[in-house]
Formats: sequence, C-alpha cells, structure tokens
Amino acid sequence: MKVGANSYKTIWLSEDEKSVKIIDQTKLPHEFVVQSLNCPFQIEKAIKDMQVRGAGLIGAAAGYGMYLATLLSEKENYDYLPYIGKVLTATRPTAINLKWAVDKQLKATSGGRTLEEKRKIAKETANQIAYEDVENCRNIGKHGLSLIKKIYDEKGKVNILTHCNAGWLAFVDYGSATSPIYAAKKAGIPVFVYVSETRPRNQGANLTAWELGEELIPHAVISDNAGGYLMQQKLIDMVIVGSDRTTYTGDVTNKIGTYLKALAAKENEVPFYVALPSSSIDWNLKFGKEVPIEERGGDEIKFVKGMTEPKNGKPREIINVRITPNSSRAINYAFDVTPRDLVTKLITERGICDANEKEILKLFPEKNDGRNR
Amino acid sequence: MKVGANSYKTIWLSEDEKSVKIIDQTKLPHEFVVQSLNCPFQIEKAIKDMQVRGAGLIGAAAGYGMYLATLLSEKENYDYLPYIGKVLTATRPTAINLKWAVDKQLKATSGGRTLEEKRKIAKETANQIAYEDVENCRNIGKHGLSLIKKIYDEKGKVNILTHCNAGWLAFVDYGSATSPIYAAKKAGIPVFVYVSETRPRNQGANLTAWELGEELIPHAVISDNAGGYLMQQKLIDMVIVGSDRTTYTGDVTNKIGTYLKALAAKENEVPFYVALPSSSIDWNLKFGKEVPIEERGGDEIKFVKGMTEPKNGKPREIINVRITPNSSRAINYAFDVTPRDLVTKLITERGICDANEKEILKLFPEKNDGRNR
Repeated sequence: MKVGANSYKTIWLSEDEKSVKIIDQTKLPHEFVVQSLNCPFQIEKAIKDMQVRGAGLIGAAAGYGMYLATLLSEKENYDYLPYIGKVLTATRPTAINLKWAVDKQLKATSGGRTLEEKRKIAKETANQIAYEDVENCRNIGKHGLSLIKKIYDEKGKVNILTHCNAGWLAFVDYGSATSPIYAAKKAGIPVFVYVSETRPRNQGANLTAWELGEELIPHAVISDNAGGYLMQQKLIDMVIVGSDRTTYTGDVTNKIGTYLKALAAKENEVPFYVALPSSSIDWNLKFGKEVPIEERGGDEIKFVKGMTEPKNGKPREIINVRITPNSSRAINYAFDVTPRDLVTKLITERGICDANEKEILKLFPEKNDGRNR
Repeated sequence: MKVGANSYKTIWLSEDEKSVKIIDQTKLPHEFVVQSLNCPFQIEKAIKDMQVRGAGLIGAAAGYGMYLATLLSEKENYDYLPYIGKVLTATRPTAINLKWAVDKQLKATSGGRTLEEKRKIAKETANQIAYEDVENCRNIGKHGLSLIKKIYDEKGKVNILTHCNAGWLAFVDYGSATSPIYAAKKAGIPVFVYVSETRPRNQGANLTAWELGEELIPHAVISDNAGGYLMQQKLIDMVIVGSDRTTYTGDVTNKIGTYLKALAAKENEVPFYVALPSSSIDWNLKFGKEVPIEERGGDEIKFVKGMTEPKNGKPREIINVRITPNSSRAINYAFDVTPRDLVTKLITERGICDANEKEILKLFPEKNDGRNR
C-alpha cells in the first residue's frame, strides 16, 4: 500500500536473497525505517520486539525466518529447520499464524533430499506464504466490500470502528479489517473510520491511523473507552476487527479490548465483523477459552512511547514516558476472546460466513476430515 | 488521606482566608505540588485545566470560588456572585456538583443583606460544602464496606475493579468509589484493586494508583481494554466506580469507558456498584441521554503526559509525547452513560439502593416534592 508516493509491502526478500527487509513498526508513525534481518534469530527478535507484528505478517516473517535458517546450513552443513521452527513458534503464544507458517515450511522442506534442495524449497515456500497472504487479504477486501456497500446504499454513509491494527501493516499487504475499507475507497464509497488507539501498545494510534492517513482515508483516533459511547450515539455503522486466532467453531481471539467492543456492538445492534484469512483459524481448537493468552511485561502499560515536541531547538525524538507511580505494578494481558455469539459474520478469503463450526466448514470443506479435535 | 507520612485534604482555605489551597493534580503522580488560588478566575482555570477534577472536588472548588468572588467585592463594592456562579458552572458541562454548589451558595448568600454579610455566609457555606463532602464520602465508605465484607466472607478474597479516579483526590477526602476500599483496609479486610488507566487523561494510572499506593493498598494498573478479559477469567469480584451525574431514575454518567465495563460486568455476573454522594444526583433529569456530554480537545488523545527517564545526566521532567500521526484527527468524548439496568446498586451517604427512581426517593424522600420534572 501507499507510503507517500511509493507502494510497499511489509516484508520482502533482499535482492541478493540473503536477508529479509521489513518496515520497523516500533518507529511508526514517527519514522519510516526499513530494516534488514540477516538470520533467523534477528527474525525471532523482530517478532518478540514487535518490529513486525500482526497475524499475517508474523506468519510471513516466520516463513522467511525458516528460509534464513537454511542459509545457516550453507556454512555448517546442519539442518536447522526443526530447531528454528521451535524458536519462531515460541515468540508469541497466542498467534496461530506462526505455527501455521512453520508447519508449512517443515512439511514442504521435508520433501527436500539435500540441504541445498531444502533451501530452494524453503525460499519458494516463504515467498508462497507471503503471496498467499496478499491474495487472501485482497479477497477479504472483495467480500467485505459487499457489506460496506450494503450499508452505504441504505444509509448514504458508512462509519466504521476498528480496533488495534489489522491493516496492511499486520499482513503483507491490504490487511484483513482494512482491506474492505481500501476496496470501498477504490469503489468510490466514502467511508469514515474510527480508530481506537489500542492501549497499551497503541497500534491503532500508531499504525492504523498512519496507514489510513497515507491512503488518504478519513479517520479519527478515539480512546479505547469511547467505542461504547459512539455506538450508543449511533455514530458507528459497523465494526470490523481482525483476529490472531479463531477456533474452528468461531470464537475469536484478538487484541485485548475487542471483547468489550463486541459486547457494546451486540447491545446497540451494530454489526460486528471479524476479517481473517483462514491461516488464522485454529482447526484443532474447539473453544476460545483454550487459546493461550499472552501476558506481556507491565512496563508496556507503565510507559508510553511517543514523539517529543521540538523545544529550545532540540530535535524531536522518540522516547518513553512513565504514566504511573514508579512503585505501582501493572498487569498486561495482550488478547481476549470474543465468543462466537457476539460475532455477526466472519469475512474470509473464500467468502462471508456465520461464526460457527458448520458454516466455517462449509467454506473450508477440506478441513472437515483428518483434524485432531 | 495519607501523602507520605502526612494527612491531606484536596482543598482548604489558606490561613489568612484570602485564598484557596489545592493539590495540583496535573502534576501527579510525579510531583506533589500545593498551589494557591487567589481569585475565582484562578478557580475557574484550575477546574478547566483539571488541576482540580472529580465530582465532589469541583463542587467544593466552586463553593470556595464563590467565596473568593465575595472578596472581589471588598475592593469594588459589587456583588460578583451571580456572574461568578455562571462562570464556574460553565467550566465543565457534564458534572452536576458544580451547579449544585453554586446554587447552594446563591441561595445561602441571598439571605445576606450586605456584601459583608454575604461574604461571611459564603465562607461558611464553602466550608460547609467541603465538610459535607467529607462526611458523605465517609458514610459511603461505611455502607460500601458491608458489600466488600460480604464478598470477603464468601470468597476469602476481594478483587475490585475501579475506573477513572473516584478517590479522595476526586472529593475532599475519602473518595466515593475508594471510600469502601479504605474502610475495608481499616477493618482488616485485604483487598486488591485493579485500576484501569482511564485514557485519555489517565486518571487511573496517574491518580488512583498514586493514592492507593500512598495508603498502601495493593493494586495493579491495567489497560482500559483489559476489564472484560479479567471478568471473563473470574479475576474481578466487584466493580466500584463513581459518577459525575446520576439521574434521579438511576442512569449513571461517568468517565468514558464506564459503560463498557458495566456491559462486561452484566455479561459475567460481576456486581457493578456506583458510589456517589447525593450532590451528584440530578433531581431534574429523568434520562441519562439528556445529560450533556463534554467533548474535550483531541490533543488529549494525541499526546500523552508522563515523566521522562533520567538520561545522560539530564534530570527527569514531565513532558507530552505524541502517539498519533501529526495529521490524524482525534475525537474525545469525556463521559458516557451507563443505563440503570446495568447497575447492581448505588452506594450513597444514606445507604445502598437499587438504581431506580422509587428506591432512590426512598432514601431521599425530601426530594419527592417540588422537583421540576
């Protein structure tokens, strides 16, 4: 998508195919920095530090991380893939795309008879994972557009609330929750997006607002607290969020706070959509409450990162400021689970469906058999 | 309540009775600064800038502001009370205590035949408003304690979620939502308090965490987004919040985000209590939706105030950092309305009651007649 006059994806292979390029998302919206990651441990660190984050993107990063693991074997003649697979999967416990991408790589490369062959397969598979992510998000946009169009035809306006960043920055391109929005803009439908800032890491304020701004989509940042009030006031026509892991029965794990918005949407009869590629569906988990919820450090709550204002000729800089008493503890759960009965529809690459096992399996019939339930 | 080894109230008359002393709450938790306000326009500014904030405290500040207005008349031989009453009432549109305190002063001083007499009455009335606020909050603590005790007797633990600051900093002493917590501590009941940070102004992270810390109450700061998850996980035994204006029918206007927590409490069968002195009840408004909701500047969302870390020998300082793109707009509603059917009970200075007209009027029968409904 657009960054100024240029088009970017969030991750790509360098020209010499020895490293992976990413946009350092911890610097946005203040600085646009492309960074090179030269080994799988740098990928591990980039995921842990959330320089890359978001369901689809960490899947793609894990895919490329596995490819970089095969470059280690060039020097050492050792198959690092199983070990690096474990390292990468362990970076974020809640997201399912990591495991999905690692498993895909392990399965694909198991067909390689030599390390050289595995290397070739791993590169192709990593590129394939990224390519599929783009295609899936594009299709989510196509399907989601019909929902936006329907509201526009009825009301002559479309105000959308989204939470966290399920934008192109969370995938390789287009995004999940944002893809229908970008498709709507392309189709000439004016949309307005309320972006909840998404404490503690402010992915809404930092990332979603930035990418919508670069694409010239009208939007406003709101506090996470404001979603309910806006719905009470009939200022929201639809909610679209992404998902880090959705069970095959339709329970949606997503950024902490999603559940509160879903409750308010139900109460105020606002449709609540979850946009997700099937790579975010956990075909082995029945109940959302079984999803491991990542607990992150309390300092993410105690400190807020932002850009200073110029003062006495000092240049701007990105710094952390503390908002709590030094001695106060903070507890930081990163995700919550929205039960399927609060979800109006899921928007997938294959179409739109109700959030229940039967309807999900109708769209993905090949998953009906052989699953370890 | 305690600040280090000393005890404070949030507002008091200076020794020479020519000015009013306040704790500058925009500096907390980082600096404890007592400030003198020497004329009603400084009171106006302190309320607008939220150096003093919170239902009871701005009422008390308005009471003292009216007294300071009578000091203007010493020089100018002019009755400033009606004018200053309007100025002070206009500072914050949602809070009802402002109007309540101003009306109380106007009524009381109307009995003074000379400016000198009005001055004397205004001083006594201001002190009386502050004194009553303290007594009301103390009684809220006494009544609320019984609710905490009941949970403790049943479960052997009490985890309380509160939102924003309805602590002693929001009143003259004790607080509304915190008063039962302080009473529980005094009664030897161990409580743990989850403090939601309360974006955009972080009254939870800045103020509630600080005052609980000074009183040695175990607590943890959480993101506003986390309240629902904690309830899903059965980590919250009760919610207690305050109110900026409650209709006589029981609809509760409070800090933005209260409504979302109330929805989650209902869904997860967690009791949801609102602690408020009757000075926060609007005896003229039937429906919460009639309460004017203050819209504040978007910069409160775009910028976060906090304390820098020491770096290269530079001392710490309180600064603002920007978290959004510079060009993004932000929309900032300060309050929302929690409908009465989401409220388990109201805790008032006269006792505990259901959030409906009949039960509220049973506690305050003198309000049954002569109200302008």
